Amino acid sequence: MTIQFQLEGTRGAARAGRLVTPHGVVETPVFMPVGTLGSVKGVAQDLLEDLGVEILLGNTYHLYLRPGVETVRRMGGLHGFMAWERAILTDSGGFQVFSLNQLRKVSEEGVTFRSHLDGSSHFFSPESAMAAQIGLGADIIMALDECTEYPAGRERARASMELTLRWAERSKKYFEAHKQEVPWGSGRGKGSPPSRGDASPNDNALGGDVKCTQGLFGIVQGGMELDLRKESAERTVAIGFPGYALGGLSVGEPRERTFEVVDATIPHLPTDKPRYLMGVGTPEEVAAYAGLGIDMMDCVLPTRAARHGLLFTSGGKVSIKQARYARDESALDPNCGCRVCQRYSRAYLRHLYASGEVLAQVLNTVHNLSFYLDTVRRVRHSIRLGEGTRYHPSVCSRPKS
Amino acid sequence: MTIQFQLEGTRGAARAGRLVTPHGVVETPVFMPVGTLGSVKGVAQDLLEDLGVEILLGNTYHLYLRPGVETVRRMGGLHGFMAWERAILTDSGGFQVFSLNQLRKVSEEGVTFRSHLDGSSHFFSPESAMAAQIGLGADIIMALDECTEYPAGRERARASMELTLRWAERSKKYFEAHKQEVPWGSGRGKGSPPSRGDASPNDNALGGDVKCTQGLFGIVQGGMELDLRKESAERTVAIGFPGYALGGLSVGEPRERTFEVVDATIPHLPTDKPRYLMGVGTPEEVAAYAGLGIDMMDCVLPTRAARHGLLFTSGGKVSIKQARYARDESALDPNCGCRVCQRYSRAYLRHLYASGEVLAQVLNTVHNLSFYLDTVRRVRHSIRLGEGTRYHPSVCSRPKS
Repeated sequence: MTIQFQLEGTRGAARAGRLVTPHGVVETPVFMPVGTLGSVKGVAQDLLEDLGVEILLGNTYHLYLRPGVETVRRMGGLHGFMAWERAILTDSGGFQVFSLNQLRKVSEEGVTFRSHLDGSSHFFSPESAMAAQIGLGADIIMALDECTEYPAGRERARASMELTLRWAERSKKYFEAHKQEVPWGSGRGKGSPPSRGDASPNDNALGGDVKCTQGLFGIVQGGMELDLRKESAERTVAIGFPGYALGGLSVGEPRERTFEVVDATIPHLPTDKPRYLMGVGTPEEVAAYAGLGIDMMDCVLPTRAARHGLLFTSGGKVSIKQARYARDESALDPNCGCRVCQRYSRAYLRHLYASGEVLAQVLNTVHNLSFYLDTVRRVRHSIRLGEGTRYHPSVCSRPKS
Repeated sequence: MTIQFQLEGTRGAARAGRLVTPHGVVETPVFMPVGTLGSVKGVAQDLLEDLGVEILLGNTYHLYLRPGVETVRRMGGLHGFMAWERAILTDSGGFQVFSLNQLRKVSEEGVTFRSHLDGSSHFFSPESAMAAQIGLGADIIMALDECTEYPAGRERARASMELTLRWAERSKKYFEAHKQEVPWGSGRGKGSPPSRGDASPNDNALGGDVKCTQGLFGIVQGGMELDLRKESAERTVAIGFPGYALGGLSVGEPRERTFEVVDATIPHLPTDKPRYLMGVGTPEEVAAYAGLGIDMMDCVLPTRAARHGLLFTSGGKVSIKQARYARDESALDPNCGCRVCQRYSRAYLRHLYASGEVLAQVLNTVHNLSFYLDTVRRVRHSIRLGEGTRYHPSVCSRPKS
């Protein structure tokens, strides 16, 4: 038994659903906070639970380098290691290999890359990327893909797409042969999680003594070519996965182009499987993509922006470092119910940031995540109520359609 | 109305009591976490409340430089500024002036020093130090003292002590003339706290419409000379304060000497006033000083050590950075009930620290503070039960007495 997706309501292209994973139910559309190294930077797990986070994203590339897959596997996978009993998704590592490595070498077999930490040489094949993700033990894992760069010529986009398709076949083949090796798949034993971080899926949504496995998603590539995207989607669907991601977007192209590609690709994906748009976006974009029929998204923006003092509010972006906030007694966002806005003033947040206090990062991140999660919660609610296919069309920069 | 101290139990030299402040009751003996810049580094205020923190320490020197007294005063003082409704104590700034400034110049009038941030020149007199602390609005503030360096010759220690006594007189005189200017002293008005960080003392322990003021403590100096300490204590008591601190200790002298000076000074302080030993110590030392009759202590050790991966546990100190913990699934301290020990493994804490994750500082600090607060809680409990004057005498390195 692996992940299941249940559609609960649609309105136009937008969908509200339930993603049932071995570690709990995830209501969709969902925004997944990024916990690169097994931690959403600065925010403890109990606080993430309080924020209503139902699924986190971990980065395979980073976790593979530190602390290493074997260490995580022995602790029962990421759930046990980071004491997080709810759902987790890991990416394939492909994006970081391509974005953090100038010296990568791609061959039919896989990709050779150097660690950004110490320059040491490493190799990911579809098979080894699967092995790493099985060891990390997320509920949802991703086939190894080549993230096509932007801009890319048509022939380059096609060749890259074809490679990703061949890697998808190999990823699935390896996964099917080894999926029983997931650390939490067969109850307690060597590698089961410690009792404090009890992540036994038997206590969770799929209940009982069911043998649980991860869900492997395929990734659609094809650059910015709409016909290649269509072909990539159809051929990835033909391979067959319980969910499909749109990769190779948000890589430098104009936002209008991203919307166009997403909108043109979605009709070629099955309606009964979750659709995951990787690496987007602003709160307005997240809401708009949900309106297009996207079910899952992730982005470092809320957490990274928080570290730079950039905060998302109902009144627009606030750069809290500015001197104008030095004596501003008002809440960061008077319309926000998060514990930061309920307690602290802009003046205090500005002081923490200006003084380099670690609490600035903690509080800024809590607020930004809260703002994202509230945004998506409202989107879900409006879809369920049938209030419309678009959330906040006035602030959505979506062109045409 | 200002602070009150009620003794609730004694056993030998040790005392258990209640310090009633305009912002709540503080059970003593108490360990005060240090919130240098209006933040206990990495730990949000609600978490400090959960830990049972009843009083925080703020550093006048640091807050005077950033964000500046006037900014804090306008927000209703530190309580409003940092949204902390419980008690606060500020030091006089003297210790930082002496420890962070090589170029300070002391005269009868006061001390000239350079900012460690930008080299700008500043001046603290007893009067201006009082004005700063009244503007910051802590519940307990400290007279400006000269922290005698170690080692110091006898004549130097006497001259320094005499200067501190004259400054104590001037501090008290200024405070008595200006104590009504505390930002929260006369209810709402200009400078009252924002509603979110409501710190009106009228809602607190002293209740009603009572006119509240801060409590000014005197500081005993005298270097390591026991007769000078006695004289300093007697003459500071003659000036008259609602509480007395022992300053100029933990400045490099051997721990045995610190104990000796504390033990020799306490008999010359009134039993009905709180005794505050500044800047100590390890958990064992904190327990031991409480056994000598000390009521209040503060130290950066739990928070600073946490940032360096040094953790206090019931089994001794743990340097979590060590590779030996990389796959250690056990709790940091199996005897600790804090949220860190209840949830995370040593392996995870080690990974966070080794990866430079901000969450390492957050979790390490929460644990260390929890360990200190638990230690002092047990000390209070044992005093109240009359179980003995010493807590854990086996781990207390206290000599003679």
